[in-house]
Amino acid sequence: MFESAELGHKLDKATYDAEVPVLREALLEAQMELAKQAKFPVVILIGGVDGAGRGETVNLLNEWMDPRFVQTHGMGEPSDEELDRPMMWRFWRELPPKGRIGIFLGSWYTWPILNRVRGVTKNAELDQSLERAKKLEKMLVDEGALVLKFWMHLSREKQEKRLKSLEKDPKTRWRVTKRDWEHYTLYDKFNAVNERVIRHTSTADAPWTIVEGYDTRYRSLTVGKILLDALNKRMKQPAKRSTEVTAPPPMPSIDQLNVLKTLDLKQKLDKKDYVRELEKYQGKLAMLTRSPKFKKLTVVAMFEGNDAAGKGGAVRRITSALDARQYNIIPIAAPTEEERAQPYLWRFWRHVPRRGRVTIFDRSWYGRVLVERVEKFCSVADWMRAYSEINDFETQLVRHHIVVVKFWLAISKEEQLRRFKEREKIGFKRFKITEEDWRNRDKWDDYEHAVCDMVDRTSTEIAPWTLVEANDKYFARIKILKTMCDRIEAALKKAK
Amino acid sequence: MFESAELGHKLDKATYDAEVPVLREALLEAQMELAKQAKFPVVILIGGVDGAGRGETVNLLNEWMDPRFVQTHGMGEPSDEELDRPMMWRFWRELPPKGRIGIFLGSWYTWPILNRVRGVTKNAELDQSLERAKKLEKMLVDEGALVLKFWMHLSREKQEKRLKSLEKDPKTRWRVTKRDWEHYTLYDKFNAVNERVIRHTSTADAPWTIVEGYDTRYRSLTVGKILLDALNKRMKQPAKRSTEVTAPPPMPSIDQLNVLKTLDLKQKLDKKDYVRELEKYQGKLAMLTRSPKFKKLTVVAMFEGNDAAGKGGAVRRITSALDARQYNIIPIAAPTEEERAQPYLWRFWRHVPRRGRVTIFDRSWYGRVLVERVEKFCSVADWMRAYSEINDFETQLVRHHIVVVKFWLAISKEEQLRRFKEREKIGFKRFKITEEDWRNRDKWDDYEHAVCDMVDRTSTEIAPWTLVEANDKYFARIKILKTMCDRIEAALKKAK
Repeated sequence: MFESAELGHKLDKATYDAEVPVLREALLEAQMELAKQAKFPVVILIGGVDGAGRGETVNLLNEWMDPRFVQTHGMGEPSDEELDRPMMWRFWRELPPKGRIGIFLGSWYTWPILNRVRGVTKNAELDQSLERAKKLEKMLVDEGALVLKFWMHLSREKQEKRLKSLEKDPKTRWRVTKRDWEHYTLYDKFNAVNERVIRHTSTADAPWTIVEGYDTRYRSLTVGKILLDALNKRMKQPAKRSTEVTAPPPMPSIDQLNVLKTLDLKQKLDKKDYVRELEKYQGKLAMLTRSPKFKKLTVVAMFEGNDAAGKGGAVRRITSALDARQYNIIPIAAPTEEERAQPYLWRFWRHVPRRGRVTIFDRSWYGRVLVERVEKFCSVADWMRAYSEINDFETQLVRHHIVVVKFWLAISKEEQLRRFKEREKIGFKRFKITEEDWRNRDKWDDYEHAVCDMVDRTSTEIAPWTLVEANDKYFARIKILKTMCDRIEAALKKAK
Repeated sequence: MFESAELGHKLDKATYDAEVPVLREALLEAQMELAKQAKFPVVILIGGVDGAGRGETVNLLNEWMDPRFVQTHGMGEPSDEELDRPMMWRFWRELPPKGRIGIFLGSWYTWPILNRVRGVTKNAELDQSLERAKKLEKMLVDEGALVLKFWMHLSREKQEKRLKSLEKDPKTRWRVTKRDWEHYTLYDKFNAVNERVIRHTSTADAPWTIVEGYDTRYRSLTVGKILLDALNKRMKQPAKRSTEVTAPPPMPSIDQLNVLKTLDLKQKLDKKDYVRELEKYQGKLAMLTRSPKFKKLTVVAMFEGNDAAGKGGAVRRITSALDARQYNIIPIAAPTEEERAQPYLWRFWRHVPRRGRVTIFDRSWYGRVLVERVEKFCSVADWMRAYSEINDFETQLVRHHIVVVKFWLAISKEEQLRRFKEREKIGFKRFKITEEDWRNRDKWDDYEHAVCDMVDRTSTEIAPWTLVEANDKYFARIKILKTMCDRIEAALKKAK
């Protein structure tokens, strides 16, 4: 795999000196065009062996381009705020917005490689990490990002030579650490793991470019030219990738049954029982979330449902059992300008809470496969891939011991009409009913179809949907509270 | 001071039960109006003695209002990312945007009070903290925020009684900690410090409301009503406070001299000297920023100057000496939607870097007293107060051992014309010259006046301006590099 990068590539000074000014001007122009278009972000990963010039290359790219529109991230040890969240959170928070270039020195590959070489993990776990990395990259590319991955390689002999020469020069001595030499003694191990990583993750969308790192001129010009070509090629492409996808037919059901239709919406709770159960489960939720072990837990709860299904009321019954300091409600409305400059899931990732906290999303990332699908705000391809992107997202949360609770509040079409009319009558509730609600109502069947697809495709063992029969508010609220308690209780039992 | 809050205020259940539904509806309506207007944020601070019901009150407010538009922040121990920045950073990052309510349980008063009671600080230092708090609050109010400060008080007897009764009930036992009892034994000390704090920081703009905390009904209804009144009163006010301020005359100078006119713009460096000096100071800067002690330091450098004065080129001469992983360039353009929903300085606070890092602002918070002043984007009162707000901001950075380096790049009117014309000729530089640049040029004198005022009012001992004679790019770049080196070298010497 690394054969081509051990041939002793080099470039003479005259050629380099002649080519660099041309390249620089072209890069600068491409970068300005990128910023002007502001249609896609550029994510550059720089990996490779110690001493192969990763840092130097990045510094040079910054010198060649306008560094104001490049952000370089050296992903060293994570901070405590980062450790409190799933591993990918620290990359999400640093993703470049559209029109900008983000360079990652050390990436989502760094720790999987180190852990495998050190024997902390086996190949199976390494491969799992690589699958996650591939999914992330695929999502980035599908969202329009240009993803470039460079691997700087050195043969064993060249690595030794390089480290020694860096050490000799007092100006570069600081760059060679004990760790570098330690890694050098593990050269073969690293090589095997690196090869596996590159083999598994060189995809059509985001291939690795292996660059021999010994000769500075060869390495620099190679990387610069590949970057320039990729930028120009991508800017000439039409804004949207033309993957024509047709929506799949609804799940077959000749008997017209679906997960929503089988709900028994007649279920009720009378006021007396409600008051008793409310006190019981709110008390229980209060105790659970105040137990010392809860500090190690995180809860992400999410509410979707028909308009007027009572999401707000249900959320309030939960929050009034919690300490106001520990929860956060994120109402999902139209994305802000900064959010629109990022991949779809970015605005949810930014709200993933720290340990010991509860975050409640009032509407959520499922908007992609509900309103955005039905109203055609995104393409079929976009919402079709969203199912697996969402499953990946939730898997990452759950892997990090976050309890993910998802509620769909279902009411009948008749009950919705009754509530709409009631809302229009009551003064301070009038703000809750808009033209849009009436419009959505006209598309009842489309939404029902979308909801059934959503449940079928995203109700997973680790993050199941709880469908809530919400024609009766009392019944719905208690079912929700009880589910919250059960899920948290189970998680607390598992937590050490 | 606390006399009125030791009278044994209470409210009977019947009155409370009758008033609460009315209050709740009014609060909800006010909150909706607040969100709809989205003209100002509401910052609520809740302070007070242990057991006085601070947490309960906040929970109740969340229950009474729509919790989706309220964010509650329990400001406990800071995270490592917060410790790496000035103390106020953690409050800035949690400020509510316009239209929202942010409740802070534990505020910028918490640590100053605790430190004083524990004897870590003396009154003089406490008073300094209080001055900083007052300035922050004044700035928030000037920027349009509604700031409400509640202090929950208990007499010594009532505090003991309260803690004991909380401890007796198994449901509330978790709320009483060893620390609470420890604080109880320090009641008199706390009382004295609290009184000093309230006395010093009860301003016309942001007065404290002292509430007796023993009777839950009395306390809750009092806080709720004050909040409602304040919200409604504020929403009826005209958007902009009508403080009529006239711009001060220019600093008197009958001889027409000013700090810009006395610059010797003829200073030059020939190419040979430039190349030698460039290598020297870039080498020095590289060594300084790579020294182990630099990990404890932070550098915030800031570039302002006439259009076409060569800011970009100067910045690049600095960054090419740095490791790309350690610096970040923030080009300041029009604020984003999220930034416009916050006080003016918010978009700079969000970029204050961690330790060991260099952040370079290409244009900066001085836009307020330059372009915003000259183009009348803000009122005279706004830019007049900006001088001291900016000084406060920079003081906080410097107090946190951040090296603040500020450059003004000055060129003559003739040199600017020459460069504009040159830029129009050269292909890849054409994007750098716009209509706006020509318009700005017409206001040369206004800008000059603004710059002189700015330097006079914000060149401080801790964060001095460096005026750079920039007609000759070589001379300018070397002066800038040398200044960076000198400032960092001095800071490293001081750092332990």
